[in-house]
Amino acid sequence: MNVLSQATAFGGMQGVFSHPSEACNCDMTFAVFVPPQAIKEPRPVLWYLSGLTCTHANVMDKGEYRRMAAELGLIIVCPDTSPRGNEVPDELTNWQMGKGAGFYLDATQEPWAENFQMYTYVTEELPAFVAQHFRVDMSRQGIFGHSMGGHGAMTIALKHPDRFKSCSAFAPIVNPSTAEWSVGAFEKYLGAGKAAWRQYDACSLVEDGARFPEFLIDQGKADAYLEKGLAPWLFEAAIKDTDIALTLRMHERYDHSYNFISTFMDDHLAWHAERLV
Amino acid sequence: MNVLSQATAFGGMQGVFSHPSEACNCDMTFAVFVPPQAIKEPRPVLWYLSGLTCTHANVMDKGEYRRMAAELGLIIVCPDTSPRGNEVPDELTNWQMGKGAGFYLDATQEPWAENFQMYTYVTEELPAFVAQHFRVDMSRQGIFGHSMGGHGAMTIALKHPDRFKSCSAFAPIVNPSTAEWSVGAFEKYLGAGKAAWRQYDACSLVEDGARFPEFLIDQGKADAYLEKGLAPWLFEAAIKDTDIALTLRMHERYDHSYNFISTFMDDHLAWHAERLV
Repeated sequence: MNVLSQATAFGGMQGVFSHPSEACNCDMTFAVFVPPQAIKEPRPVLWYLSGLTCTHANVMDKGEYRRMAAELGLIIVCPDTSPRGNEVPDELTNWQMGKGAGFYLDATQEPWAENFQMYTYVTEELPAFVAQHFRVDMSRQGIFGHSMGGHGAMTIALKHPDRFKSCSAFAPIVNPSTAEWSVGAFEKYLGAGKAAWRQYDACSLVEDGARFPEFLIDQGKADAYLEKGLAPWLFEAAIKDTDIALTLRMHERYDHSYNFISTFMDDHLAWHAERLV
Repeated sequence: MNVLSQATAFGGMQGVFSHPSEACNCDMTFAVFVPPQAIKEPRPVLWYLSGLTCTHANVMDKGEYRRMAAELGLIIVCPDTSPRGNEVPDELTNWQMGKGAGFYLDATQEPWAENFQMYTYVTEELPAFVAQHFRVDMSRQGIFGHSMGGHGAMTIALKHPDRFKSCSAFAPIVNPSTAEWSVGAFEKYLGAGKAAWRQYDACSLVEDGARFPEFLIDQGKADAYLEKGLAPWLFEAAIKDTDIALTLRMHERYDHSYNFISTFMDDHLAWHAERLV
């Protein structure tokens, strides 16, 4: 493990680390906040998955999670959103594809399959690595994220209801199979056959029988992507005849930025802590 | 006034604006957070001056001031640290001089004097502009800052004890006339004659009779610049036989970064609110 930076914050430690990833076939960077309570005992871990164009750094810099995480004793892990490096394929002029746009799936199509194995990375390789290097209680895990990362969090929770005790999302892409900004990427990563897309689509997963007890979703009504990319009402419709509980909060005047996320970060951390701590 | 961005945050508004500055002879950018209470009535204003290499954006992104400012009803204004633009002189390989290093003084030496009038900008031009465009109660002003901006806040408060009701600083340069990272800049901006430096040096100002009732200073003990650039004990010594009160808090393990600043931001906002609200 390579320590890129470490600093004391809110009595705990905010660090940035990198390690060689077998799944992604490149070095991967991630951020970890360790609360002061972890000196005494292993603490619950909360995975934050970021949105398109982001790295681990956006939420670390702008998410304002440390004060409350320190109070509640939560370890926060923030992975990158894609493989990185000169050897990794990309579409330089397309922010919805390639670097910064891994969509938390395992690509099956060339040239992407060689590196874009973010599902395996985030659900297997990184958790094993974090469990080895930090004082995490892996029996108490929650997952959340923003936009593309909200999609990641919800699909991963739906496929691992026994592993995660809590899931929430800020402005998630709940139906990437139809959303304007993900259809192109899904086709390139997974091929034209839409059957393979369903395992990475929260609405499709629910239709196909996947279950998770409850979700918290916050969504800004001034979000420019609300209608064509996010549309949380599609998830509301998908769970209608299930026992999945959804707390969907629509907020006047809030956009898609970290101004929105940081405003409701405390609520999300408290939501997870109620189910984890 | 040019609106560069505006977003809802914590029930208020975080905006970034620019305007032509007469003092600096260029366009200047600044950030303003307006709390929700300002819809009803003019609110107190707190000026945050940033450190070397920063723009208005560092504290806006990483300072974590919005939640508490919204709670307390404080308007937070964050100016840039220097004039900007292709016409403005700079020393490209020297981060302690030129752009990003205005030191909140009025330069008298060429080629700097034409643009580097940050003292006039921050104490006259920007306040007049903010008073005109935002719902600020200019009878209730506080000032704080970080590092070079802590120097700015303390010297400006010492010279305007009637205007400011409160002053605090994170890891301030209290004695730039002797600190390793400011002596070179002071000489270039103000000339070799050290008499002219004293008006921009908190320790010298106190020695020369300037007074401000009380200061709050937080300082990390793991700050790499503590010994040679900051040395808050010099200010402690300078005020020894005066009636100036100083709350100086030294914090184990904290460095010079926004991890440190954001950790103690709430305390500073509360300090100011007690004296302003």
